[in-house]
Amino acid sequence: MSMENITLEKAAEMLIEQDNILILMHKSPDGDTIGSGYALCLALRKAGKKAQAICSDPIPSKYGYITDSIDDQSFEPDFIVSTDIAAPQLFGDKLSAYTESVDLCIDHHGSNTRFAKYSYIEPSAAACAQIIAKLIPLMGTEIDAPIADALFTGISTDTGCFKFRNTTAETYRAAAEMIERGARNYMITTLMFDTKSRQQLELEKRAIETLDYRMDGKIAIITITTEMMAETGAEESDTDYIVSLPRQIEGVMAGVTIKQKGEKLCRISVRASDGVDASEICSLFGGGGHKGAAGCSIEASPAEAKEMMASAIEKVIGK
Amino acid sequence: MSMENITLEKAAEMLIEQDNILILMHKSPDGDTIGSGYALCLALRKAGKKAQAICSDPIPSKYGYITDSIDDQSFEPDFIVSTDIAAPQLFGDKLSAYTESVDLCIDHHGSNTRFAKYSYIEPSAAACAQIIAKLIPLMGTEIDAPIADALFTGISTDTGCFKFRNTTAETYRAAAEMIERGARNYMITTLMFDTKSRQQLELEKRAIETLDYRMDGKIAIITITTEMMAETGAEESDTDYIVSLPRQIEGVMAGVTIKQKGEKLCRISVRASDGVDASEICSLFGGGGHKGAAGCSIEASPAEAKEMMASAIEKVIGK
Repeated sequence: MSMENITLEKAAEMLIEQDNILILMHKSPDGDTIGSGYALCLALRKAGKKAQAICSDPIPSKYGYITDSIDDQSFEPDFIVSTDIAAPQLFGDKLSAYTESVDLCIDHHGSNTRFAKYSYIEPSAAACAQIIAKLIPLMGTEIDAPIADALFTGISTDTGCFKFRNTTAETYRAAAEMIERGARNYMITTLMFDTKSRQQLELEKRAIETLDYRMDGKIAIITITTEMMAETGAEESDTDYIVSLPRQIEGVMAGVTIKQKGEKLCRISVRASDGVDASEICSLFGGGGHKGAAGCSIEASPAEAKEMMASAIEKVIGK
Repeated sequence: MSMENITLEKAAEMLIEQDNILILMHKSPDGDTIGSGYALCLALRKAGKKAQAICSDPIPSKYGYITDSIDDQSFEPDFIVSTDIAAPQLFGDKLSAYTESVDLCIDHHGSNTRFAKYSYIEPSAAACAQIIAKLIPLMGTEIDAPIADALFTGISTDTGCFKFRNTTAETYRAAAEMIERGARNYMITTLMFDTKSRQQLELEKRAIETLDYRMDGKIAIITITTEMMAETGAEESDTDYIVSLPRQIEGVMAGVTIKQKGEKLCRISVRASDGVDASEICSLFGGGGHKGAAGCSIEASPAEAKEMMASAIEKVIGK
């Protein structure tokens, strides 16, 4: 299979030519893959096509305002698109059969492995949804309120509510345009950034208790064990906010969150300040991501994983 | 003195006609009064005038990136402008002499008392800085990077980083324009919204431990004692974030924070969801504020104040 980079105009053209389009979202779905996938699905249906957005994992219920009005369509797909998927390992179990049959990959990760037949990758876009917001008009379809809600969700969540380093003037302009097209920005930002469950707050308290500073406070590490998850009744998505906590502390250059997934398995999230490359750190353990935010998995206990991460980061920062 | 509402064009015209302009900011200065005042000062100086922005209280050091490059100018003012000041009682002690001599008031508070000779009030603007961003080009002056930094600060802080209900498409467009003119949006949002001291985090943990739910979780109350402040080494400004915490919890309609100020004195902050009026609650104890956020003082111990607030809110919500 030939791998080819194409323009966004060409991507729009390809989509218009198809009638039955399957859209893949990445596993452990976040606001950007959901917003991008569903917005594209809605736009394609608006253009008279059959389209369906699917994911290996269930869509968290808080995204119901996007997903609730979209019914299932059954059809034999003749074109497969992925949104916000950087690499085959992000397809997840249920979608693993598709890893080698994606026709068009639309993504904003510079690290995208070019697994699809055709790829449109725009690493300067803060969110994949920012790309979809340009793609839909190129398809000749108008962005209406439900599409705008989905795209505003992707743009706001992948920028941490317009706070991450990736946030540009174009990001703010895209947000403005989505509001003008009907996106309920206040409802969405309140739900995504200003709402916590009791369980989440309890987990946050427990997580702060585990804070471990290294290198005179240049590194801060939080540990979330499976026990803490069980005792607080928190869900996986409740850890999203906590992951950004250690880096927020004054003087911290690398903030690490160790999430225990099994007795000898941890998922690591790294958030880095200017001058430190989180993806460089995570690539040492077979992971990846962006400069400011990256992740990896380590087959070790939380305590072992912490020491491995600490010493790796000390070397990277100390360079 | 005649009080007159004028257009923004007229306000720009008036400013251009003057040579020595004094700009007043409100007491306990926030990002919007600081951003608005200093941006206007910089623009007037750029236009060849003498200008100075002053405040009753010291400007917090975190705004140094705005204020550090602005030296003092001494002159006899022939025109006095206020930015983001809604009423005379917000001038503070040091500026109280000016309450009746303001020539031009530029503000976005609908409650503005029209204390100045001429007023331009735009309640739909999310921030006073959003108005100043339109005013400066009307003066024939270009917004450069330092002015853009100041205005982006006002816009982002007065919207709680684009999360409050006042945030509109115009707000996002103004932010985009400031970035295009050189505003360091990532630095500013990181500093304003993504930075916590260790003390602040420790206080947050202790505060979460005190969470007390009433009325099946419709009311959530946090207590911060003087002992907790002393033990964590936190400062008064470290409580700003915590005050918004209890209302963020799912299902909570009224979030209350009791801050002990003396053995028998507490300062109370109330944050309310749609349908509950925080200012109505606080007015029962001689306080006031907005529907969404209000405050009052109670001469009682934290435990007593908590019961007084809880029973008052139960009556208001139960109505």
